[in-house]
This record gives sequence, structure tokens and C-alpha cells, in this order.
Amino acid sequence: MTTKRKTKIVMAQSHSEFLTDTGVDIKQYFKHKSALIDQWLDQLMPGEDDSPAIIHQAMRYSLFAGGKRLRPVLAIATGEIFGADQNELIPAACSLEMIHTYSLIHDDLPAMDNDDLRRGMPTCHVKFGEAMAILAGDALLTQAFVTLADYQTQKPEIKNRVISEIAHAAATTRALIGGQVLDIQFEGKPVTGPQLEEIHRAKTGALIRCAVRIGAIIGGADPAELDAVTIYGEKAGLAFQVADDLLDETATSAELGKTAGKDAASHKATYTSLYGIDGAKDMADRLCREAITAIAATGRQTSVLEEIARFIVERRS
Amino acid sequence: MTTKRKTKIVMAQSHSEFLTDTGVDIKQYFKHKSALIDQWLDQLMPGEDDSPAIIHQAMRYSLFAGGKRLRPVLAIATGEIFGADQNELIPAACSLEMIHTYSLIHDDLPAMDNDDLRRGMPTCHVKFGEAMAILAGDALLTQAFVTLADYQTQKPEIKNRVISEIAHAAATTRALIGGQVLDIQFEGKPVTGPQLEEIHRAKTGALIRCAVRIGAIIGGADPAELDAVTIYGEKAGLAFQVADDLLDETATSAELGKTAGKDAASHKATYTSLYGIDGAKDMADRLCREAITAIAATGRQTSVLEEIARFIVERRS
Repeated sequence: MTTKRKTKIVMAQSHSEFLTDTGVDIKQYFKHKSALIDQWLDQLMPGEDDSPAIIHQAMRYSLFAGGKRLRPVLAIATGEIFGADQNELIPAACSLEMIHTYSLIHDDLPAMDNDDLRRGMPTCHVKFGEAMAILAGDALLTQAFVTLADYQTQKPEIKNRVISEIAHAAATTRALIGGQVLDIQFEGKPVTGPQLEEIHRAKTGALIRCAVRIGAIIGGADPAELDAVTIYGEKAGLAFQVADDLLDETATSAELGKTAGKDAASHKATYTSLYGIDGAKDMADRLCREAITAIAATGRQTSVLEEIARFIVERRS
Repeated sequence: MTTKRKTKIVMAQSHSEFLTDTGVDIKQYFKHKSALIDQWLDQLMPGEDDSPAIIHQAMRYSLFAGGKRLRPVLAIATGEIFGADQNELIPAACSLEMIHTYSLIHDDLPAMDNDDLRRGMPTCHVKFGEAMAILAGDALLTQAFVTLADYQTQKPEIKNRVISEIAHAAATTRALIGGQVLDIQFEGKPVTGPQLEEIHRAKTGALIRCAVRIGAIIGGADPAELDAVTIYGEKAGLAFQVADDLLDETATSAELGKTAGKDAASHKATYTSLYGIDGAKDMADRLCREAITAIAATGRQTSVLEEIARFIVERRS
């Protein structure tokens, strides 16, 4: 299937346009980039009327449910630092959001976390039934690789490398699916700090780490720069999860768009249950600082990534 | 994760070694190629002890459950005709078996066909639980793209094309997932001949068509040859499904390794219910002849593919 663009795409704006006297306007940056990502996603996905329509409706229902687009924004922000070609960067970034969405749909299934609500809306299986939700997840994962395989490039070796990075991050060992397996295996059992970190490095961390790495790879970062970006991604990925656990304790259900306090109610190990609210806050702040130090050491214009690290730990949803 | 080869691989043998005075010994050909495929699959998959072990055990349980390896054998047989490099051909062929296996695991789930038995063994969710079966399917699909991304090649453009072919065949429109969606949508409803063909062109046909196409693409077939191969794949794919429906009517459960007559019992539309046993037999024979005519027209040494077409309609399991 060839994906034709039916609408004009939001023009990409560079980093510098979001710099103000007091630094980067990160809210405006996210607003602009997520609009750009949404327009690309719309074009990269089969249409709602394409046969069989129901599966495309289910895929789009979850993909356009109001996610923050953190992973593609991270990929784009990192790619921009290294001058990546936007026409390669954005589809690759979008493929990460497809994979993230598939993982949420499958995690929410009755056989897994059995969640009815996600981002304030009925989950995919509640809306479309269990069979269609399983297939919509499968199809989003597959569409991510259709997207990666089909974007135009003058550098097929780089594209092969990007596909490899993403496939590994979505796989089992120290990766997305493996993290969900560990999460299931540890449910209701006492978990140590290192075990909790192992779960989240895989379940949440691998795709965030991958996002910044593919941005750097598409932009042609050198090995030392790629190392710095990788450390940033690993720290930011863990900080994201610690902040998530803090939000689950301190935010309201309305702010979260899902049931707050669910982890505590189900006696699931979290950073707050292990270290307390203050301990978790300190940890998130430390990880944020370490991420910023790592990326700033590249000597590039990294203010957007620095602000994203702060946003990750300070957000309210 | 890097996949290292721990054991020596069965040496690939060429077409000509299976030619006898009376033609190709297709049984020996399948026996040799499936041993070769099994050894490669073993090396391309994470080990049973790699963490988290349970997911790798579930993936391997279904992958090594005794499948015929029809899709990878078709890819290899076609690639050999055009002189494809075995080190590119075999991993690409193996990725098709991973995708085929994932689709079987998900199709067997309680929310889908709810099958307890597959190839004479408990299905993945019966053995490992529903959550792990969903994740094992996800992981096999992902591992297929890890495999494709990581095989060594001097021709990254060809590899990108192979990844695109496979991703599209596994996707929704006229493809694997879309076929399963149509199958679910038509359940219990009257189905016409063209509708049944639409279901099976997608559900079974897309991956078989893709198998022969990637063999031809890796082998550098010219456009006319690729067209001939594509027609062969489409005819053989439909013939396979017609033969499957015939087997469901005429073979025993022991021969099939699953409950015989299940489609008839569940009033599912099949080629035999639409055209009768004799009508379906005629159809399978006609499709087989058309497949052979198409591939023979290339003027290449196509006797193995011709025998595979015959095997597809004459098999007893």
C-alpha cells in the first residue's frame, strides 16, 4: 500500500525559532512538533475507509487518543541538533509512536493489565473488542516497519541501521516486550531497587533511548556524540518512569486521564513505594541533571533536549 | 542483541542435487531445506536461557512445533533459481516463518479462534497462558524485523526492498492481518466465492506470494521474471488454501494434528462448502497447473517450484 499525502504538512521549524530571551519555550515546541507528527502520522497510516475499515479505525482510535508524542519529539529534537534531514527524521520518529501505541493497546488487554481507561477514553479492547484490539496492536507494530521500509533516502545503510535500532528496542532482551514480561513476572512479589530499574530500563527506557539514538544516527552524529546522546536517553527514560510513579501518587485521575493511585492499590512496586515521595523526587531530579550534563558535553546547541529533560520530571500528566 | 551462531550450519545444497531420473525428489528437498531452516532459526532466535527466559521458551515452543516451513522453503527455492546469495536468502526466508508462527499464535487465542490444539500440541496460550502467548506473538513479529535488519549484505537497497515487501505482506490491506479481520467479520455469515477468495488472498496468500517474491528480488530477477514469480505465488497461495479446506473434510485429526472437520462444524465458509469436494479438487488442480505454467514461462530451471506446487495440492497434512 502506498501512503499518499492528502493534506499539506505543517512546515518543520528549527530549534532556533523556539528560543526566547529566557531560553526555550518548550510548551510551544511540543505544540508545534506534535502537530507536525500528527499530520505525518495521518498520512503514514492507512485511511479509516481503507478495507478492512474496522482495523484502521481501531488503529487510529488509539494512535490519535491525545498522547504527548514524547518519543517522536525526542527523536526529532535530537536529530535537529545534528542537522538530520527532516524527511527521514519525521517518518522514523513516527514509527516509534506506532510502536509505543501498540504496546499500550496490548498492555491494556484483559489478559495483561486489564485497563478500561487510557488518556480519559475507553481502551481499544473496550471500544472495539478484544480480537480487534489484539490485531490493531499487531497492525501498528507492522505499520511501523512499513513506514521505516518505505521512507525515501539516499543513505540505505543508515536506514538499515535505524531499522535495526528500532527492532532491537521493541524486542525482548533489555527491550520493550521483555520489560512487560518482567513486569508481569514481578507482579505481587517483593521487588528491589535494581529489579525495578531492570523492568523500567526495558519497558519504558529502551524506546526512549532508541528515540534519541535514531535522531543522532540519522543526523550523522560521531561515536562520542552518540554515546552522550545514549546516556541522555537512558537517564531521561528512567526519570520519565520515576516521574510517572510520582504522578500516580500525587496527581488526580482527571489530570492523568486514568485511575490515579492504581499502582499503590494493586500493591505494585514503584519508585515511590520503594523510596517514598521525597526519595523519588530526589531521584528524578538527579537523573534529570545527569541527562542534561551528558548532552551538554557534546558542545552542540542542546537547549531543547535540556528543557525536555526538565519537562519530563515536572509535567502534571 | 547480537545472534551468534553456536553450531555448524547444515551446508546448503543446490537444486541440481535433488534431481533424479524421474524429476525432483521433493520429499528429500523439503527434508534438507527444513533442517537447514531449523538450524538457522535456532541461531537467529534468542536462547531459551536469555532473560527473560519464559518469553523465549514460548517463542521457541511455537516456532519449533513441527511446521512444514513452506514459506521459507518457497523463498529459498525461488531464490536458488535466480542464483541468490544463501547468506541473504536464508535469514530473510526465516523471518517469514517467524511472522507465520506469530500469526498462528494470535489466531489461536481465546479472543480469536480459541483453538487448544495446533500440530498435535497444546497451543501457545494453553501451554504458557494468554498474556505470554500475546507477547510471544508480538516478539516473533519483532524478531522477524531484527533478523531482516541485521543480516549482512553488500546491497542495502535490496535489503530495504525485502523489508518493505515483508512488512506490507504482514500488514492490513490485502495482507496477513487484514485477512484475519475479514475472516472474523464473515464468521457465521453467508460468503460468496469472490469474498472467500478475498479473505484467503490476504490471510494465507499474501505471505506465500511474498515468499517467492523476496527470493526472486534477492536473486536479482528482472521485472518480467518477478511478474511470473508473483503469478506463481498467487496461484500457489490460493491452491494451498483450497487444499487445506479439502484436508479439513477428508483427512483425520491424527493426520492434521488438529481437530478435523472443525470448519464444517462451525458452519465456516470453505471452498468445499461452496463448491463441493469435487469442485474444490478441480479448483486446486487448475490453480496448480496455472502456477506451473507461469513459472515455467521464465525459461529457468524451475522443476523444484513445479514440484512444490504439486506437493501443495497433494499433501495429506
